[in-house]
Amino acid sequence: MRLSRYFLPILRETPKEAEIVSHRLMLRAGLIRQEAAGIYAWLPAGLRVLNKINAIVREEQNRSGAIELLMPTIQSADLWRESGRYEAYGKEMLRIKDRHERDMLFGPTNEEMITEIFRAYVRSYKDLPLNLYHIQWKFRDEVRPRFGVMRSREFLMKDAYSFDLDKDAARHSYNKMFVAYLRTFQRLGLTSIPMRADTGPIGGDLSHEFIILASTGESEVYCDRSVLDLPVPGADTNFDDPAALQSIVEAWTTPYAATSEMHDAAAFEAIPGERKVSARGIEVGHIFYFGTKYSAPMKAMVSGPDGVERPVHMGSYGIGPSRLAAALIEASHDEAGIIWPDAVAPFRVALLNLKVGDSGTDAACETIYRALGARGVDVLYDDREERPGAKFATADLVGMPWQVLVGPKGLAEGKVELKRRATGERTLVTVEDAVALLSA
Amino acid sequence: MRLSRYFLPILRETPKEAEIVSHRLMLRAGLIRQEAAGIYAWLPAGLRVLNKINAIVREEQNRSGAIELLMPTIQSADLWRESGRYEAYGKEMLRIKDRHERDMLFGPTNEEMITEIFRAYVRSYKDLPLNLYHIQWKFRDEVRPRFGVMRSREFLMKDAYSFDLDKDAARHSYNKMFVAYLRTFQRLGLTSIPMRADTGPIGGDLSHEFIILASTGESEVYCDRSVLDLPVPGADTNFDDPAALQSIVEAWTTPYAATSEMHDAAAFEAIPGERKVSARGIEVGHIFYFGTKYSAPMKAMVSGPDGVERPVHMGSYGIGPSRLAAALIEASHDEAGIIWPDAVAPFRVALLNLKVGDSGTDAACETIYRALGARGVDVLYDDREERPGAKFATADLVGMPWQVLVGPKGLAEGKVELKRRATGERTLVTVEDAVALLSA
Repeated sequence: MRLSRYFLPILRETPKEAEIVSHRLMLRAGLIRQEAAGIYAWLPAGLRVLNKINAIVREEQNRSGAIELLMPTIQSADLWRESGRYEAYGKEMLRIKDRHERDMLFGPTNEEMITEIFRAYVRSYKDLPLNLYHIQWKFRDEVRPRFGVMRSREFLMKDAYSFDLDKDAARHSYNKMFVAYLRTFQRLGLTSIPMRADTGPIGGDLSHEFIILASTGESEVYCDRSVLDLPVPGADTNFDDPAALQSIVEAWTTPYAATSEMHDAAAFEAIPGERKVSARGIEVGHIFYFGTKYSAPMKAMVSGPDGVERPVHMGSYGIGPSRLAAALIEASHDEAGIIWPDAVAPFRVALLNLKVGDSGTDAACETIYRALGARGVDVLYDDREERPGAKFATADLVGMPWQVLVGPKGLAEGKVELKRRATGERTLVTVEDAVALLSA
Repeated sequence: MRLSRYFLPILRETPKEAEIVSHRLMLRAGLIRQEAAGIYAWLPAGLRVLNKINAIVREEQNRSGAIELLMPTIQSADLWRESGRYEAYGKEMLRIKDRHERDMLFGPTNEEMITEIFRAYVRSYKDLPLNLYHIQWKFRDEVRPRFGVMRSREFLMKDAYSFDLDKDAARHSYNKMFVAYLRTFQRLGLTSIPMRADTGPIGGDLSHEFIILASTGESEVYCDRSVLDLPVPGADTNFDDPAALQSIVEAWTTPYAATSEMHDAAAFEAIPGERKVSARGIEVGHIFYFGTKYSAPMKAMVSGPDGVERPVHMGSYGIGPSRLAAALIEASHDEAGIIWPDAVAPFRVALLNLKVGDSGTDAACETIYRALGARGVDVLYDDREERPGAKFATADLVGMPWQVLVGPKGLAEGKVELKRRATGERTLVTVEDAVALLSA
């Protein structure tokens, strides 16, 4: 993409309203714009990040056997009256009356609707297990939205829902998601720690939060350092092997790890001193097993091999891709701006023409731009008539993992400069080597 | 995808509430489910179709130079008060009060919001032309929603917005979208006809609807048959050449073509008899140039080369992917079910194991399933323990373009049967040839 034809509205000043670094940087780098309190537009570069996060989330959901569908944003209040949550949910639910004065709502989550879909079609254990997910916008009317897309009112959520005949089978479905989440966060460049969690308004008796460490995190967390060294399950994990998954989950849940709500000071004290970690964290995923909490009142029944009907056992599993974009920045930035992990950067490469109009730099930039494009590498080509300093600042702020600096001085010696955003390391290479290295 | 592990809830009976064939077939084939009046969930196979439509729409928008972003679904009423449309829009707008009693709404379209984004960042003609689009869920509270996703309340729309310094430049932006739309519909397997249209509540003085012919269409349309034979512009069209685009648009708008609202009976009568076409059509796209209708009241100003500030000239351009899924079925089906064009089929191939448990058919099916998967071909493998008749009916109903029928009788001669859904044509081929033909 040529920057002269793109829409990347960089802000020079730091917006006053932004209290945390990810919010400041997302506004300054032209990734998001606030349209109302807690409601954001995703500007083009921000949307590219969000889509890359979604793609990874989706691949790992599919790998685990979950099936994607898409439920609508607007729901009927009657569904929520069936489960008993319509009154219970409180003011965070955005309640709506349509033109016929029917009670509707903007979905804050989808347990009720997916249970309705399940009961409409599935009657037999032969159609189980089933895990259905979607990636859809949700709305929670927070009383004081803040921290940008970290805690917005309209936000994107991947929510999956598992259906099984009994608790044992449901535990296997839960473990599949547990492993899928470990893999998802690793692929996003994050180190996540599963922590036993409170189930809150979703209900149920088994739940884990996935937390990443970041000094600006909202939660106080405590863990045994050994959990940080556990190997994340590989892409060849057999999700159909209950024993294998159970042993992975046990390995990950044996070392002490808890948020302050579930903290057990005595257990923490028993950890050897050098392994004690007390830090700040950000919740990036939450999984629940809640049995028949929704299926029983909503009569989502399946018959077993014995012919007896019983309410289906369910779990739900959430990741917020919009929140993740901010969490990634909290975990990876410096004074100059964002440092995107390779997997989710809006573009892999920033190509900086340091003297637009010079036939040598123009030609070298065109060569690199076309060669990388032909190899499927995303490039943001800064072809604007701007000072080099402004181009350096923009590339650092927006945070592409690689920069290629093309100026007359280097070209006189047949070289361009390759800069790694994360380390600041620079090397002089030929145009051919730059293309080869960046498309490897 | 193995059907035994998929979620494709086929209905045996034809749902009574469905008045048109696309609605009936989408319900029967397990593509959608109604969750409230005019509000649908997209079941897994339906979502695959929708995503393939979106991908083509997106590619052609990008090719024309439009840039994707994503605006939120919920908007502030204040934005619409600035343009004067908040009161004017009527009951189709879903109005909402949040917990602080602020007036919000679920966006039925985004002219106001995109104008707000533009004016926040762009000041100079140097940043023009600019065309920003998104693909987002919209809500229009139709008094009597019907016809499934053809006329639903919550629906997906690709809406693009162009910004130019003056009317001539805006005309070029309009022409880019005109050509992008011709290409989009062709790639979807549709023959579209641009027709001069009324501008309605969007406003402006230049507008075209894109209509496809279908006997079940909602509109009466009239045209000169010669418009059906015009060549659709190729992928190598130079979108930066105003004269070339203008001549394409002129060629497409010279033959008579009009909906009943804009029909000129005298002009139609002047067409030679054998070229007169009077038929039913479905609107699948609508483009508008409306100048400064929003930029003037909302003060979206740009300075020209002369330093003088003036309101920016705008256009908007809509395609409804969710509606298109239904329109495609209206245009392509038979008694047995849907006949998807190759480009948007939920799967390219239905692989039918006609005797599950027979080691020969099982092995041949596995070979074909893996070989096609490795070549990137989407396959729905019917590995259920069902009668052949039920498998034939499901494959015909869901409408994959190709079927591979694998039974013991054919295999005894080393052959499987390849069936083209559209024509019913069947040929006996070896397993190797089937794989080669389907991955070509």
